[in-house]
Amino acid sequence: MTYRLYYWPGIQGRGEFVRLLLEEAGAAYVDVGNNEAEGGLEAVQALLASPEAVHPAFAPPVLVNGKVVVAQVAAILQYLGPRLGLVACDANMALWTHQLQLTIADAVAEAHDTHHPLDVGDWYRNQKPEALRRARAFRESRMPKFIGWFEQVLARNPKGPEHLVGARLSYADLSLFQLVQGLRYAFPKAMGALERDTPRVHALARRVGARPNVSAYLASPRRLPFSEDGIFRHYPELDG
Amino acid sequence: MTYRLYYWPGIQGRGEFVRLLLEEAGAAYVDVGNNEAEGGLEAVQALLASPEAVHPAFAPPVLVNGKVVVAQVAAILQYLGPRLGLVACDANMALWTHQLQLTIADAVAEAHDTHHPLDVGDWYRNQKPEALRRARAFRESRMPKFIGWFEQVLARNPKGPEHLVGARLSYADLSLFQLVQGLRYAFPKAMGALERDTPRVHALARRVGARPNVSAYLASPRRLPFSEDGIFRHYPELDG
Repeated sequence: MTYRLYYWPGIQGRGEFVRLLLEEAGAAYVDVGNNEAEGGLEAVQALLASPEAVHPAFAPPVLVNGKVVVAQVAAILQYLGPRLGLVACDANMALWTHQLQLTIADAVAEAHDTHHPLDVGDWYRNQKPEALRRARAFRESRMPKFIGWFEQVLARNPKGPEHLVGARLSYADLSLFQLVQGLRYAFPKAMGALERDTPRVHALARRVGARPNVSAYLASPRRLPFSEDGIFRHYPELDG
Repeated sequence: MTYRLYYWPGIQGRGEFVRLLLEEAGAAYVDVGNNEAEGGLEAVQALLASPEAVHPAFAPPVLVNGKVVVAQVAAILQYLGPRLGLVACDANMALWTHQLQLTIADAVAEAHDTHHPLDVGDWYRNQKPEALRRARAFRESRMPKFIGWFEQVLARNPKGPEHLVGARLSYADLSLFQLVQGLRYAFPKAMGALERDTPRVHALARRVGARPNVSAYLASPRRLPFSEDGIFRHYPELDG
């Protein structure tokens, strides 16, 4: 079965959390938006606008697997996790993994809003003074709280700080890697300053990035670069 | 088994999405934060700060059921849904229910940010001009998009527009009720103007509110009032 990922072309965006799972697992998938032969952007737009969809998506990414159509990153990962061997079988551990993922999703949304504090439909340049203020609150308060919490989760894992949940890789580890990568891209100074106090989080990100399938993916053309069109944007003025 | 809900006292907040499930199901639960005999606010703070927690919560609400400790509203509802008979047994329908819940969570977060666009740790009065701008974008663009999407979901439900998923009440219906109630409180003019184009959403909210257990709850002292300390705040200037 080939999974089909529908997401905007040209950016990592929220689609990247799904790509990382599929790549780590070596799953067969088509990244429709970035693949003209599969329809590219128009196919993504057609899926979103389909008047027949019984389970319409509010926004991409959307994963299609046969008749199953799932949107919302956390729901997609929860669907893929057991299929790709990237979540614990135990129900309570799976629930804990999902709770971690939902907190990553919250951090991602807040990171996005640093450059779009007032209106997601308007340009950054039209909300720049406000972005400076929101980014300061994010850098000084929210980002340390989020990253510090994941550090605590790793420190308290009874199986050791190698993984967020138990002694095996889960989709939450892959997503935390992406969150750390994104924040390092957007706020290199602020994240650099955080590293000393959150060594386990940064060590986990390095280990995930060094995994054979992940590192091969990162070196491939399938890994799109971070950019100022995505969620994590490097505007030096927002890094303090 | 008595469920224990840990949430800030005195406000509905995100805890309300959990309370509605427990009340609809007639489940035995203790609302710890609002119950001095159970420890009240101090018990909530102690749970959050507990140095022994293997699964620490990033933020409340937290549900405790014996040894299970779950935070994040959507994860709590996913945990409670099957136990309280408030989600479909079919895995794909349960996943769809969760996807709807995650989109409600996104709408709730955006509704919150209308009055706190720049800094969640600062007062509304210190970010009021920015709140006016963010609220306008929310009222004119995001809120109609969210509510319009739920209208579409109801219109396309093969089992009819009585429920979001299939032919039975689910936790997503209860949460959509709360979202509609909250938005009607915060933005009475803007939500009133939306009602004509989203009749199914409003009819669902009325039906949920009229259910015996829900209406008894709403009339009880356990249902805290909406207020300007919660997520949904009525500042008339933000309603256009």
